[in-house]
Amino acid sequence: MSRVYNFCSGPAALPEAVLEKAQAELLDWHGKGVSVMEMSHRSEEFMSILASTKARLTRLLNIPDNYEIVFAQGGASTLFAQIPANLTNGFDSACYLDTGAWSTKAIKEAKKYTNVVLAGSTKDVNYTSVPDFSTLNLDEKAAYLHLTPNETIGGLEFADLPETNLPIVADLSSTILSREIDVSKYGLIYAGAQKNVGPAGVVINIIRKDLLARSNNEALPSVWSFENLAKNDSMINTPPTFAIYLADLVFEWLEAQGGVAAMEKINVEKADLLYSAIDNSGFYSNPIDVRYRSRMNVPFVLADESLEKTFLKESEEAGLRTLAGHRSVGGMRASIYNAMPIEGVKALIDFMQAFEKRYG
Amino acid sequence: MSRVYNFCSGPAALPEAVLEKAQAELLDWHGKGVSVMEMSHRSEEFMSILASTKARLTRLLNIPDNYEIVFAQGGASTLFAQIPANLTNGFDSACYLDTGAWSTKAIKEAKKYTNVVLAGSTKDVNYTSVPDFSTLNLDEKAAYLHLTPNETIGGLEFADLPETNLPIVADLSSTILSREIDVSKYGLIYAGAQKNVGPAGVVINIIRKDLLARSNNEALPSVWSFENLAKNDSMINTPPTFAIYLADLVFEWLEAQGGVAAMEKINVEKADLLYSAIDNSGFYSNPIDVRYRSRMNVPFVLADESLEKTFLKESEEAGLRTLAGHRSVGGMRASIYNAMPIEGVKALIDFMQAFEKRYG
Repeated sequence: MSRVYNFCSGPAALPEAVLEKAQAELLDWHGKGVSVMEMSHRSEEFMSILASTKARLTRLLNIPDNYEIVFAQGGASTLFAQIPANLTNGFDSACYLDTGAWSTKAIKEAKKYTNVVLAGSTKDVNYTSVPDFSTLNLDEKAAYLHLTPNETIGGLEFADLPETNLPIVADLSSTILSREIDVSKYGLIYAGAQKNVGPAGVVINIIRKDLLARSNNEALPSVWSFENLAKNDSMINTPPTFAIYLADLVFEWLEAQGGVAAMEKINVEKADLLYSAIDNSGFYSNPIDVRYRSRMNVPFVLADESLEKTFLKESEEAGLRTLAGHRSVGGMRASIYNAMPIEGVKALIDFMQAFEKRYG
Repeated sequence: MSRVYNFCSGPAALPEAVLEKAQAELLDWHGKGVSVMEMSHRSEEFMSILASTKARLTRLLNIPDNYEIVFAQGGASTLFAQIPANLTNGFDSACYLDTGAWSTKAIKEAKKYTNVVLAGSTKDVNYTSVPDFSTLNLDEKAAYLHLTPNETIGGLEFADLPETNLPIVADLSSTILSREIDVSKYGLIYAGAQKNVGPAGVVINIIRKDLLARSNNEALPSVWSFENLAKNDSMINTPPTFAIYLADLVFEWLEAQGGVAAMEKINVEKADLLYSAIDNSGFYSNPIDVRYRSRMNVPFVLADESLEKTFLKESEEAGLRTLAGHRSVGGMRASIYNAMPIEGVKALIDFMQAFEKRYG
């Protein structure tokens, strides 16, 4: 079989050019006679890969000098604990916005470490919108304000950030590098790799340097200390070297595509095409406030729920893979991250329209 | 350049046949049109890989029914914290043996969670031997007894296990699958993958089921709970899917080699050859009590320390990679895990003898 269009929410599709390069280098990286997987993390070769990964990310996101890039192990769910474990030291509370399944999980985990102040929630509208920023319940003495600017399951994406003096901590797992951001507005950005960056197992953290001093190294698990991770260039122990290498290849590919601004332009176009097709159909629908629809994760349902299984079976057969919604909500979901070419979105729309003709 | 003989202590060499298979499947696993890296961890395809990985490991180590295999994220250093965080719940102490750099790190981390009882130490002989098991200081009410049966840096390996009623918790990162073991003698075996199993970022845990009840899920980071990891088939969040897939390929390769008994036979032969060459030279030496020399990690020094740099430079040029000792101790170290063929050990010995002739 040839390559398919893969709409998985994560682990998600990677650019084909990246996989081809990784494949070519898999047994022999740059003539060194070993795979990247087989290199000491402290070797000159891997250190050059790590440095390149950080330099490319710094360029792609215009990361200011007063930020550190730290690679942590696990996934964003690990960071749901690691972040309050580091950043609430010396504080009595942390503020959280509740905008869907992932912020709910982050809140549950934070409660193990601190008092969680619910700064705002859209649970009452079934998470179809973003809280009104002018009415947030902010504790000005809190350790930080946590946001989930893109809810991968719900398909909800913030259009901007609240104004606050609190450091903003944001889970950008599913939006990092898909749109331009102003890093200086954040205290900590974190992102599990397996959506827009690379394989699962590594989490990118971009942290304002003054926050590093909060880490209580006496009490924290050693490998969790942001301060020590920063001090040791993410190598308190062996980092997930192959995942970092793949991230470097993805960043290289992004630079060749014209960087984040160019990706954002395509991502807007892809999302507009797909939401228009949904809205104009009368057969498919998406419940999210149009101002806050995610550009990355597009959930939709069929007017006739009983056709869902047929839709999923036939789309799979048409080379459109993993269109099922999250198991907690059902329905359909098309995740259209950076690696999804516009041709894939057009193929999906063609399929949706043909399916509607057959069954609508 | 062609493939070299890679003596790195970790991330270590992988079997060439495994890398070749991973390379062939990198863009299209079993005709599915996607890479394993791009598959949902909950897809039928990845679930089949996970099941295969566990089934092969169960066969290779004869794991009894009252044990669970759990894949954790991070490295063994993560488990240095995760283990006491799970297993000391309801206990006042844990016993640790101190036999080198890695047990020292495990002890330091455990002190954040419990009272550490030093059951035995060979620090007074610079960790060149294993404590006399008949004189251990064991607290019979402790949560467990922790051992590091192979010290990767020191090159020290236990010949057997102490007799105790405490559950034995053992860091087998550098020996797992290199020799036959009786799993039923352990409470918990853990092993970072990047030596004998696969790429860095995943840790194999083989845990006796009765110990799962110790996890305090209210307090533990969700992704750290052994009980929940076991209940959720290691998928509380997205696991490091590609690393698990590589482990499956390595296990498949091990089965094709005849399993652990066959590997142990070759490993004994490799280690005997190398230690004999060292002992018979008068030019190279290894300080470890001969009863406890590691079969996996063979450190050695030159009679004339000033020749070390030359040795490392010339060995690298001869296609013998990463023979430097750990940065904390210097000297040389040859790590000869399962993936190192006997030809690699013979090539190293040939080089060592030629080097001795030139400079000795």
